[in-house]
Amino acid sequence: MLNLTEKIKIKLYLISDASGETVTTIAKAIAAQFEEQIEMTEYLWPLVRSKNTVNDILSEIEPNSNSIVLYTMLDVKLRLYLEKKCKSIGVLAIFALENVINELANFANVEIKHGGIPGKYKKLDANYYKRIDILNFTLQHDDGHDFKDVNEADILILGVSRTSKSPTSLYLAQRGYKVANLPIINGIEANLSDIKKPVLIGLTISAEILSQIRSNRLNSYNLNVNKEVDNYTEIENIKAELSYALEIFRKNKIPIIDVSRKAIEEVAAEIINIYAAKKGEYKILL
Amino acid sequence: MLNLTEKIKIKLYLISDASGETVTTIAKAIAAQFEEQIEMTEYLWPLVRSKNTVNDILSEIEPNSNSIVLYTMLDVKLRLYLEKKCKSIGVLAIFALENVINELANFANVEIKHGGIPGKYKKLDANYYKRIDILNFTLQHDDGHDFKDVNEADILILGVSRTSKSPTSLYLAQRGYKVANLPIINGIEANLSDIKKPVLIGLTISAEILSQIRSNRLNSYNLNVNKEVDNYTEIENIKAELSYALEIFRKNKIPIIDVSRKAIEEVAAEIINIYAAKKGEYKILL
Repeated sequence: MLNLTEKIKIKLYLISDASGETVTTIAKAIAAQFEEQIEMTEYLWPLVRSKNTVNDILSEIEPNSNSIVLYTMLDVKLRLYLEKKCKSIGVLAIFALENVINELANFANVEIKHGGIPGKYKKLDANYYKRIDILNFTLQHDDGHDFKDVNEADILILGVSRTSKSPTSLYLAQRGYKVANLPIINGIEANLSDIKKPVLIGLTISAEILSQIRSNRLNSYNLNVNKEVDNYTEIENIKAELSYALEIFRKNKIPIIDVSRKAIEEVAAEIINIYAAKKGEYKILL
Repeated sequence: MLNLTEKIKIKLYLISDASGETVTTIAKAIAAQFEEQIEMTEYLWPLVRSKNTVNDILSEIEPNSNSIVLYTMLDVKLRLYLEKKCKSIGVLAIFALENVINELANFANVEIKHGGIPGKYKKLDANYYKRIDILNFTLQHDDGHDFKDVNEADILILGVSRTSKSPTSLYLAQRGYKVANLPIINGIEANLSDIKKPVLIGLTISAEILSQIRSNRLNSYNLNVNKEVDNYTEIENIKAELSYALEIFRKNKIPIIDVSRKAIEEVAAEIINIYAAKKGEYKILL
């Protein structure tokens, strides 16, 4: 639907008592949803744990303006203070976790603590070490650097250069999956016969987009364009590379994901679903 | 406050029309908050975009049980279908974004689209390339592997081995910061005089915890314990290493964060605050 009217401009102030990850993730989901109607500018304040800091923030917000405070602070006293202060300057405050916390507390018939616990993450427990181990494993097995304990991986991602193997691997690692990734290089046979445990995933992309990505990349590194660089971006070579990779994927019955115009999160979601279909589980690291 | 009563056991079914990142992040915040009162077991279904998939999921949930469906699906028809089905089997469904979406739509006086846009991420736009570039930069500048364009980094993290430099760097990269990190090795002088742009951060940790982390790490790699390995974990050596690092931090006036018993997100939040104090901005990548 074409929207010819002007977008509404809103300043979104994100306030968190911890890292701001939750409030930023929620803002991202919301901003994408309203992007045709609202033009949002976001500002972030993490680690807000005192009335003084709340005062500092509010002194920077224009009263009665198109501003919204979206927050995840859990301390009930601080929340009430923030709400009151926002009201007094005519600015809407939204507690991002309100309905989830209320409905859950009602359901379980538990009390919402007076002083919610700010920045309450699981600390130095088994899950913490697991998280770090998964990230380190994924880092170590990035881009085929280390291949010896690849059978410890949950997922092995294959693809030619610049098909976003590394960012996808790291995103999946943050979500709890041990990932290795291996570049497919034209003419070099990947020996996949010993790989038993990991679920294999092949990434492909349109030759035109890959060429564009590689040009961008070279520009951002200020490399001199010489013969080698020409080959790297040249479209016919890219097509040959991609065909070679597709041939390997088909020969080894590897499911293929086309990453053209997809965000990392979307590619990761498809990989997670393929993994779950094969292993019968989703991994969750809370 | 000591809680001697038994915890309430709840099964939490997380349903998303996209990667499940938002709903998992919200579940994490909530689970931590209620962990003294509720023992939660989480199950995840990403990429849920049809009534058939909703039916499949609900067939796995025990009716009238201590189960909650927490979801971020945006398609209004699918949401109503899920809510109706959950009601019919006596299971509570919570739309995690409800109050934020409603309040925002009211405020801006915009319509909530009938068919919300599932998995709506920013695609192949400037932000996408920026995100990938930041991650690649951070990967390339991990553990001092590449140091030549370190002045392009926003943040340079320093610390002895196993002070979680890599996971912290990657977490910060996901949040929009270009990060390099450099190990401090006892007796080797780090030449920091040419570093202009990045904000320097020194990580330290208690010797006891570092020793424990290193032992865990060696065990998980099944390394044989020999003389070299002994030195790696031995507490006196660790103390000497940490003192050496602290001396470098002090000499170069580098702010120090003690990461003992802190989650990556907490350390990252402190780094983000130090960065913002020096540069006058928080980076936000939506």
